Amino acid sequence: MHRARAYLEPGPVLLVTSCHEGERNVMTMGWHMVLEFNPSLVGCMISAGNHSFELIRRSGECVLNLPTIDMIDTVVAIGNRTGRDHDKFAELALKTEDAAEVCAPLLSDCHANLECRLADDRMLDDYNLFLFEIVMAHLAPHPKHPKTIHYTGDGVFVVAGKVVSRRADFRPALLGNGR
Amino acid sequence: MHRARAYLEPGPVLLVTSCHEGERNVMTMGWHMVLEFNPSLVGCMISAGNHSFELIRRSGECVLNLPTIDMIDTVVAIGNRTGRDHDKFAELALKTEDAAEVCAPLLSDCHANLECRLADDRMLDDYNLFLFEIVMAHLAPHPKHPKTIHYTGDGVFVVAGKVVSRRADFRPALLGNGR
Repeated sequence: MHRARAYLEPGPVLLVTSCHEGERNVMTMGWHMVLEFNPSLVGCMISAGNHSFELIRRSGECVLNLPTIDMIDTVVAIGNRTGRDHDKFAELALKTEDAAEVCAPLLSDCHANLECRLADDRMLDDYNLFLFEIVMAHLAPHPKHPKTIHYTGDGVFVVAGKVVSRRADFRPALLGNGR
Repeated sequence: MHRARAYLEPGPVLLVTSCHEGERNVMTMGWHMVLEFNPSLVGCMISAGNHSFELIRRSGECVLNLPTIDMIDTVVAIGNRTGRDHDKFAELALKTEDAAEVCAPLLSDCHANLECRLADDRMLDDYNLFLFEIVMAHLAPHPKHPKTIHYTGDGVFVVAGKVVSRRADFRPALLGNGR
């Protein structure tokens, strides 16, 4: 589960799948943060205006799927239509698989799929902030540093670029699972 | 203030400056998220073990400074020493300026400096999660897309790379200040 942090901390756009009482949906999300390693906690802001909000609130579950630059057209298409009027899975021919622990589906073409359960809802009413625990992580073995996409607003993304290691300059206590 | 989001949402490493009763410090931070546009809210996880934690909690203020890849050696040096034993400003010859609204200094070499006040501390005891309001933003006019650095753990960073616009494929309601 610790490796999930390596993908979330850099701040990529995620595709959030949800499922409740036979209905499912998928949305884009850029507002999230790592909160803790063990248990593996992540904070996600999902506006109450999104069709996914109630599916996630009621089921207390979702999957965070990590897309890469080759999926950008799909990401933009998902972000620009609502599950209220569209079956995005069918319209966009999204490949899915069953999750192990939750009802929401995994998106097969994503680099990582993180199955989540709601861990704390006290910030939901005031901030639409879900605190999820990652209960199962599916991570593609390679590439080690996927070309994730990061939203800057206004229809513009930046893509994860050059990889720079400064490992030799780190105190051992800050490496590995420590930080 | 809306432009601040363009820099925070992609998830870069930030340098957090703080000041309380004549003492100041600076730390690296990778765990943060945008929470709201108006007011401009950002969530920041700062471990209670950090020397900066009490300075920020007691003063209720900080500055979020956005470094770029040319500053990576400084970023790593800041992240690998503690303000308990080091005056990082002196040791690393950091250039600073006075902030307008808070006591903590601005780091002059950073692309953006966001002055923050504590807006909600209810998640502090359980999660070390500060909710700040950005009360003043200093943003360099160019480049429009700075080469920010994003931490993946284990001493390895990815640098913001190619810029990709999909503006033409966005619904107007999702552009500009809307999303």
